[in-house]
Amino acid sequence: MKLNCDLGESFGAWRMPVEEAIMPIIDQANIACGFHAGDPLAIQQALRLAKLHNVEVGAHPAYPDLQGFGRRSLAMNAEEIIAMLHYQISALHGMAVCEEIAISFVKPHGALYNDMLRLPLVRHAVMDAVANFKGANLELVMPAHPDFNLFQKEGLDKGVTIRFEAFADRCYTDQGALVSRREKHAVLSFEKALQQSKKLIQEGCVITESGNSLLLHAETLCVHGDTHDAIKMAQALRHLIDNPDTAV
Amino acid sequence: MKLNCDLGESFGAWRMPVEEAIMPIIDQANIACGFHAGDPLAIQQALRLAKLHNVEVGAHPAYPDLQGFGRRSLAMNAEEIIAMLHYQISALHGMAVCEEIAISFVKPHGALYNDMLRLPLVRHAVMDAVANFKGANLELVMPAHPDFNLFQKEGLDKGVTIRFEAFADRCYTDQGALVSRREKHAVLSFEKALQQSKKLIQEGCVITESGNSLLLHAETLCVHGDTHDAIKMAQALRHLIDNPDTAV
Amino acid sequence: MKLNCDLGESFGAWRMPVEEAIMPIIDQANIACGFHAGDPLAIQQALRLAKLHNVEVGAHPAYPDLQGFGRRSLAMNAEEIIAMLHYQISALHGMAVCEEIAISFVKPHGALYNDMLRLPLVRHAVMDAVANFKGANLELVMPAHPDFNLFQKEGLDKGVTIRFEAFADRCYTDQGALVSRREKHAVLSFEKALQQSKKLIQEGCVITESGNSLLLHAETLCVHGDTHDAIKMAQALRHLIDNPDTAV
Amino acid sequence: MKLNCDLGESFGAWRMPVEEAIMPIIDQANIACGFHAGDPLAIQQALRLAKLHNVEVGAHPAYPDLQGFGRRSLAMNAEEIIAMLHYQISALHGMAVCEEIAISFVKPHGALYNDMLRLPLVRHAVMDAVANFKGANLELVMPAHPDFNLFQKEGLDKGVTIRFEAFADRCYTDQGALVSRREKHAVLSFEKALQQSKKLIQEGCVITESGNSLLLHAETLCVHGDTHDAIKMAQALRHLIDNPDTAV
Repeated sequence: MKLNCDLGESFGAWRMPVEEAIMPIIDQANIACGFHAGDPLAIQQALRLAKLHNVEVGAHPAYPDLQGFGRRSLAMNAEEIIAMLHYQISALHGMAVCEEIAISFVKPHGALYNDMLRLPLVRHAVMDAVANFKGANLELVMPAHPDFNLFQKEGLDKGVTIRFEAFADRCYTDQGALVSRREKHAVLSFEKALQQSKKLIQEGCVITESGNSLLLHAETLCVHGDTHDAIKMAQALRHLIDNPDTAV
Repeated sequence: MKLNCDLGESFGAWRMPVEEAIMPIIDQANIACGFHAGDPLAIQQALRLAKLHNVEVGAHPAYPDLQGFGRRSLAMNAEEIIAMLHYQISALHGMAVCEEIAISFVKPHGALYNDMLRLPLVRHAVMDAVANFKGANLELVMPAHPDFNLFQKEGLDKGVTIRFEAFADRCYTDQGALVSRREKHAVLSFEKALQQSKKLIQEGCVITESGNSLLLHAETLCVHGDTHDAIKMAQALRHLIDNPDTAV
Repeated sequence: MKLNCDLGESFGAWRMPVEEAIMPIIDQANIACGFHAGDPLAIQQALRLAKLHNVEVGAHPAYPDLQGFGRRSLAMNAEEIIAMLHYQISALHGMAVCEEIAISFVKPHGALYNDMLRLPLVRHAVMDAVANFKGANLELVMPAHPDFNLFQKEGLDKGVTIRFEAFADRCYTDQGALVSRREKHAVLSFEKALQQSKKLIQEGCVITESGNSLLLHAETLCVHGDTHDAIKMAQALRHLIDNPDTAV
Repeated sequence: MKLNCDLGESFGAWRMPVEEAIMPIIDQANIACGFHAGDPLAIQQALRLAKLHNVEVGAHPAYPDLQGFGRRSLAMNAEEIIAMLHYQISALHGMAVCEEIAISFVKPHGALYNDMLRLPLVRHAVMDAVANFKGANLELVMPAHPDFNLFQKEGLDKGVTIRFEAFADRCYTDQGALVSRREKHAVLSFEKALQQSKKLIQEGCVITESGNSLLLHAETLCVHGDTHDAIKMAQALRHLIDNPDTAV
């Protein structure tokens, strides 16, 4: 199990504060590409920090929606999605090369990430964009999900390796979706997030909102960088991953 | 002498109409990178067209100012300029690679292009950005100018080869600057533009606004794609370049 | 029957060319508010032109999507929709007051306009925004539709008067929706558009894609300003409206 | 002496945190208009908070530069400046009317504010925009400065009343300019800021960077909302203004 975090999400005068503190703790940095966050200087800074701490870097592209932070679905067609992904991935890839590091994966952000589950058109367009990106060999990060076999097969057909990601602090439904943020129990408490992460690491499953056990194939765990106790949580998850047999 | 044109300058529903007609006529396409014009689909389309007609491609980055079409100076510091150029050049370079072509030069756009002459801070930042871009070996296009030796030397010191560009249809001052567009005689008539281009090709000089002859070292000639008779002008210049000894 | 057109849709260097020619022909100008098109100078110019030709002016607000020209649905909640409509309507209203004219209606643009039919959440949010706008008493333009009674009642309950608009050159389904632009027969030929408009003016109905007659309650007819023969069409519709009993 | 603060400067997911805490302490809120900060919801929220605490509200318009937070000069001509100010002031004014409050002044932001001192073209364009805004009778805020008589007279000629503003925590030059933020001593310590504010309130002068006393005519004092101890500073200044004879 790896630990990842969305970074490079400052924009101009608006700073996301934890970046320097969280980078040494994680394995993978998903770096914003300028469409939901991430001006060129913020991207450059995140890349340098990742290089310093030897963290694997991926592109974190989004719908073009700064005001909505990429969290609102935008009805784009496949051609538009592919072109805008090539633009964003290229920008990040080229800037990484300027810093003498390489990117190795793409993790779509926010509404684009969620729409991959909901809308086959979006999922296939994203897969096509990653498959046809020629500058680097990139893997695609998708949500851990009971249908992961289908996604894996779709990716295989297009020539894309899928990585599956679970969330430490988000509650799951019996169907393997994240409970909507509109629900009270969508985000787990610190203690419950640690318990969920431990169960996932040790047993490969989570307890859903209705109390059932759900198998989830996950290779990487996402820790949020914008919460109150982001650093504390990242450190606890780091310890858990490095010592999978420890009691929390 | 080569013939170049600024292309990929559509944005969403707003289309620049001559792109398909002018591409077969020119040698070099300066393709917008999204900051003054050029959404991802417009960029992709321009790249495919350039590939089809075997036209050399360069990045045409600008200050971030869609509304002003990159024609208004923005007071950025060197660090900001370098990061935003790396972002834009990377985006175009990566998208070109996706289309299986390579970019070979950078021509700054609009106010950024003019500010290179006026402000050493801007010129040096642009040179640094091009010198330190690691994904491709790129040359830098600057305005043909009596001080071209200085610019060439500055470039040499930083490891950047400079290409010099003259304008077919713009009147020059005795000092080698373009007459400001606020002046009536800034833009030459069709006939005068052809005469100026012929003199430049055959004798390496232009007649300035005050009637003097001015030596101008130029390797490429810019034809505008947004004027009424853009195609006719491009064809006439193409003929002139291919037959340098012909009377106009 | 009135004749209306979407105007003020230039942005920076990208100009929509017919504005000066079409303004004298129409009754109502729907002026862009900056979110899908319309920079401050373009808005100012459209307002002055409308004033000159004594054309009624309305706000034409949109989802924030310059690149998509407001034609792509964006998943905003009611609170976001109301705030962004108040912002856009305020901007246009205040600029109109600066030119000493008044705005009297709101016509949502593009995807926002279509989403009013499809999504009650969007329709009610738009109605609430118009009802609660305090600077001017505004009516709301919606698509002419068999359900117009429902919309009228919803508006009445919120205190908003609805105006219904039909399209001269768009083919209708039996259900009263516009045939999707993805279909070949979505846009009518010049002759068919005139026939449809005449039938609408004289008999209050259109012939749908399947050949049926459909009653459509419409108070205003939209002519597009971005087509090849926009001016010719506007003139023909003007003549038709002024002489409703004439054969086309 | 009044106390003012720049507010409404959140944008989407990026929040400026002190707004709720500082509003009850100040007299005047300068609210962002969307071009350097301030999405429609952030503006709406700031207006409601100002209404709740009975704080006077003004428009805080800026150059269109989200990424640079309006802190970078953009070379706009007078016509562009006037149109973009009418757009921004209209948006804020109309949204204020929706909340049943009125705006009474305009304070340009960042580089636009500084350029008023440096560039007569900008200053006169801003004055013209305020003078010709027809929806409300607005005063213009400018920096307290030895040349305030000139500015006052220019305003008078155009029909605009000028208010002068001093800064609690910024060091002044002998010429009455703010020491550039690039200098180490540009921003005063908490204690020194209080001393400067006290001297300004009690004696109408400040001690410049070189130790001289400089008369400054100021009617309002700006407290920054984005510093570490913004609330503490605002409370101290509030106390000082309410008790001008107290020792600090």
